[in-house]
Amino acid sequence: MGIRTINLDPLKHCSRRLLNMAASQQEKASKTKVQFALKTPKGTKDWSDKDMVIREGIFTSLSNVFKRHGGITLDTPVFELREILAGKYGEDSKLIYNLEDQGGELCSLRYDLTVPFARFVAMNNIQNIKRYHIAKVYRRDQPAMTKGRMREFYQCDFDIAGNYETMVPDAECFSILVEGFASLGIKDYKIKLNHRKILDGIFQVAGVKDEDVRKISSAVDKLDKSPWDVVKKEMVVEKGQSEATADRIGEYVKLNGSLQEVHALLSQNTDIVSNEKAKQGLDELAVFIQYVEALEIDSHISFDLSLARGLDYYTGIIFEVVTSGSAPPKNAEELKKKAKGAEDASEYVGVGSIAGGGRYDNLVNMFAEATGKKSGQIPCMGISFGVERIFSLIKQRTEKAAAIRPTSTKVFVMAFGGGKDWTGYLPERMKVAKQLWNAGIATEYVYKSKANPRKQFDAADKCGCPIAVILGKEEYLDNKLRVKRLGPEFANDDGELIDAADLVEVVSKKLSEIYQDGADEITKLFQDL
Amino acid sequence: MGIRTINLDPLKHCSRRLLNMAASQQEKASKTKVQFALKTPKGTKDWSDKDMVIREGIFTSLSNVFKRHGGITLDTPVFELREILAGKYGEDSKLIYNLEDQGGELCSLRYDLTVPFARFVAMNNIQNIKRYHIAKVYRRDQPAMTKGRMREFYQCDFDIAGNYETMVPDAECFSILVEGFASLGIKDYKIKLNHRKILDGIFQVAGVKDEDVRKISSAVDKLDKSPWDVVKKEMVVEKGQSEATADRIGEYVKLNGSLQEVHALLSQNTDIVSNEKAKQGLDELAVFIQYVEALEIDSHISFDLSLARGLDYYTGIIFEVVTSGSAPPKNAEELKKKAKGAEDASEYVGVGSIAGGGRYDNLVNMFAEATGKKSGQIPCMGISFGVERIFSLIKQRTEKAAAIRPTSTKVFVMAFGGGKDWTGYLPERMKVAKQLWNAGIATEYVYKSKANPRKQFDAADKCGCPIAVILGKEEYLDNKLRVKRLGPEFANDDGELIDAADLVEVVSKKLSEIYQDGADEITKLFQDL
Repeated sequence: MGIRTINLDPLKHCSRRLLNMAASQQEKASKTKVQFALKTPKGTKDWSDKDMVIREGIFTSLSNVFKRHGGITLDTPVFELREILAGKYGEDSKLIYNLEDQGGELCSLRYDLTVPFARFVAMNNIQNIKRYHIAKVYRRDQPAMTKGRMREFYQCDFDIAGNYETMVPDAECFSILVEGFASLGIKDYKIKLNHRKILDGIFQVAGVKDEDVRKISSAVDKLDKSPWDVVKKEMVVEKGQSEATADRIGEYVKLNGSLQEVHALLSQNTDIVSNEKAKQGLDELAVFIQYVEALEIDSHISFDLSLARGLDYYTGIIFEVVTSGSAPPKNAEELKKKAKGAEDASEYVGVGSIAGGGRYDNLVNMFAEATGKKSGQIPCMGISFGVERIFSLIKQRTEKAAAIRPTSTKVFVMAFGGGKDWTGYLPERMKVAKQLWNAGIATEYVYKSKANPRKQFDAADKCGCPIAVILGKEEYLDNKLRVKRLGPEFANDDGELIDAADLVEVVSKKLSEIYQDGADEITKLFQDL
Repeated sequence: MGIRTINLDPLKHCSRRLLNMAASQQEKASKTKVQFALKTPKGTKDWSDKDMVIREGIFTSLSNVFKRHGGITLDTPVFELREILAGKYGEDSKLIYNLEDQGGELCSLRYDLTVPFARFVAMNNIQNIKRYHIAKVYRRDQPAMTKGRMREFYQCDFDIAGNYETMVPDAECFSILVEGFASLGIKDYKIKLNHRKILDGIFQVAGVKDEDVRKISSAVDKLDKSPWDVVKKEMVVEKGQSEATADRIGEYVKLNGSLQEVHALLSQNTDIVSNEKAKQGLDELAVFIQYVEALEIDSHISFDLSLARGLDYYTGIIFEVVTSGSAPPKNAEELKKKAKGAEDASEYVGVGSIAGGGRYDNLVNMFAEATGKKSGQIPCMGISFGVERIFSLIKQRTEKAAAIRPTSTKVFVMAFGGGKDWTGYLPERMKVAKQLWNAGIATEYVYKSKANPRKQFDAADKCGCPIAVILGKEEYLDNKLRVKRLGPEFANDDGELIDAADLVEVVSKKLSEIYQDGADEITKLFQDL
């Protein structure tokens, strides 16, 4: 105010020289004032509010399952030496984020959690370990946010490394899959399973040369998106196989059904059983079947010979978990019956897998060899839950998701009063809140000395907490507090007047009544629909 | 074997030309075989086993305190657009990790969690929020692993943003500090507090020019490491202050003691109270004192005028939490009494702070302005727990830390038998384990068909679990299982033979007896010494 606000018309009061000076200074100022978009980098996003509560709930559920199986957790740096990642991802290596060379070592952001795990095992000469790791990985892919394809996203992995009897860790990993989905209330899924040795055996039987196996395998991998005709054409025209070879592959890879049925079918096929690799795979699966039957999880598994998986490093069982991807359709029961009969996973396909993995027996060894260490072969079996897709599935439980609150607040402390002498009881509200905090009860109050009742109720409503503790102007002087349930159904309930000394006891009792099944909103969200 | 292993002496059997070819091929092979060190990048490390359990326990404890105060959690990308970080960290900007320019936006790894938080608030036009964020940040500093200075490390922040009545969020943040340390069993600490406005007022009173205030403040910041003489010399010789100015500053910054005492002392000083800024700071602290007394946390706070804090963006209360940094010395009681009397934090200084923070009212606005948005001023108050130092403190509780196990396994399922017909009961052990898993009980068994009892006990010992469930060769056929406590004190205890149908019930009961106080090893680690 005052002299600074006098409006000087420059043309009237200033010389041309002064005007030019002013203009130049203005230009300088606008140059130094940085202007930029306020956003997160492409393919990344902030997570907050409900979404965070749901995502953290998923992590907690899966971690509990991993711990239940003796898993320990591991945390590796977000970036690795560039050589560690080199030569592990084939042509996807171009998607790796590099750190700028600012002097010192060359580093890159991790692309997955499997390679850092193998590096850790090799580096520390670990002979056996069950570890889980929930962390972000980075891929400079073209993002498709609506489909959940991000450049920064979470992976949620459990792996068992060590020289063990065949199929024992593999069966336990499948049990973890089933328990993991159960813990999230996901029922409508199928585990599509195949075995690399059987697949490779089939290719040999069909007449594919050893050097062509991986590229034919990657053609087969497209069968979940393309019809057989297209895939066959790729094999014959692009990948140089004979019509007869392609047709023989076609006969096999169309096979799918229950683990036991398809296994029996292949075991009767003399071409297959006389192939050394395929025979080995079938023998392993015979043991596997015994174990998954003992674990009573075989009904979730569909043996699907068209499953090939992209990564080169798999050496045994491979799998992907598919789902219809939405709340059960109206004919769910019918579909279920049908699926149970035929064990056909085809109707579940299309929305992308919600978990995947397999056995990779040579990756740790690659590190040991590359660094001149001799750790011997440390075979590994791993599973990875697709957190973003699982998140989308769970968020579709709209009614239950609506009940999720971003805060855990249970009590709102308020003060009612009025008149000139009314202080608003702010320090008194703090005292009351502090008692609740000390008892571990999540509590809030409005950050205002004198707040009217409406504003306090609004704030409590907004955070959605179930209980109000009210300091009445007169009542508080008599060492009394009012405890009241919140929510529309309690609009006409004046609550209960209690001795201030009983506060923690009364509130704890009320809370245990409200959450009497022990289940909070997030637990309920993960219960079966 | 066979023909390939015949040792051909090349000089005898090969032509010179063939020898050269062989040499050239060998050279190629050794070139393509990559050799590199198997390590994590400089200043980073893997976290595993016990350390992970302790660190995750710290996160859980602090998260629970944050949630108790209505905090919601936020997750921002690990990298930000480079402009977002520019101009926020002064000369420390050189420590920022940049991502390589691989086309597209220029990004950098986050340096702290405060700037991403302010970016989030400004970007989403948020008017008020209480958020916590536990995540890694990145600094290309010279690492000192033994001192816990890493290039990748965790921050654990709670911030309140919004236009509220003065000191209300500030007082709650201090309550969170006190509750946070209580939840971790850390008692031996002092919160050193100061106020930027009072500090700036003192500088003005002492005759420091406005443009010199920040550099004199950063000289004062060194008082926890250097004696007054050295700091005074810096002010006079390097920073051009008069001897008299430096001496006046010296009088003030030597002051420390209880919040109430030092506040009273300054309030009686006419020079101070006639300075507008200092007066404003004192008025704010008068309100603050009222609130921290209501919260009964004032005894933890020491008003220390030598505390200045490095970062420029603070505008109000600033604080650091210091500790003696080890298990209580033998004269702990004496020291405690002394500290209680004098409220002098000096004996706690020296091992670095275990928390810090303050009020920063203009940071959100900087973003809003830089991007042409008008969000108005969103004042913020924040606290940050130093997780790595807290981790070191807690790990020193050696006896209790020794009880920490990397796994949560509660039951080990074993089978005892022998003879030719003995199958080893592997699928049967799986069946039994599955029942326990389905009941949420962490269970393991050895991954071997036939394992001798010694090996099974060894494996159970190694994981440290308290209960064994044993399938005896004959007993199991009678639908009986043996449940036995593990550990040296139960060496001669044969356990209890139960009906297989009662398994989950019996094991659950035993576990609730073992953990009857509800406290597992990690909870006990966080209890007061």
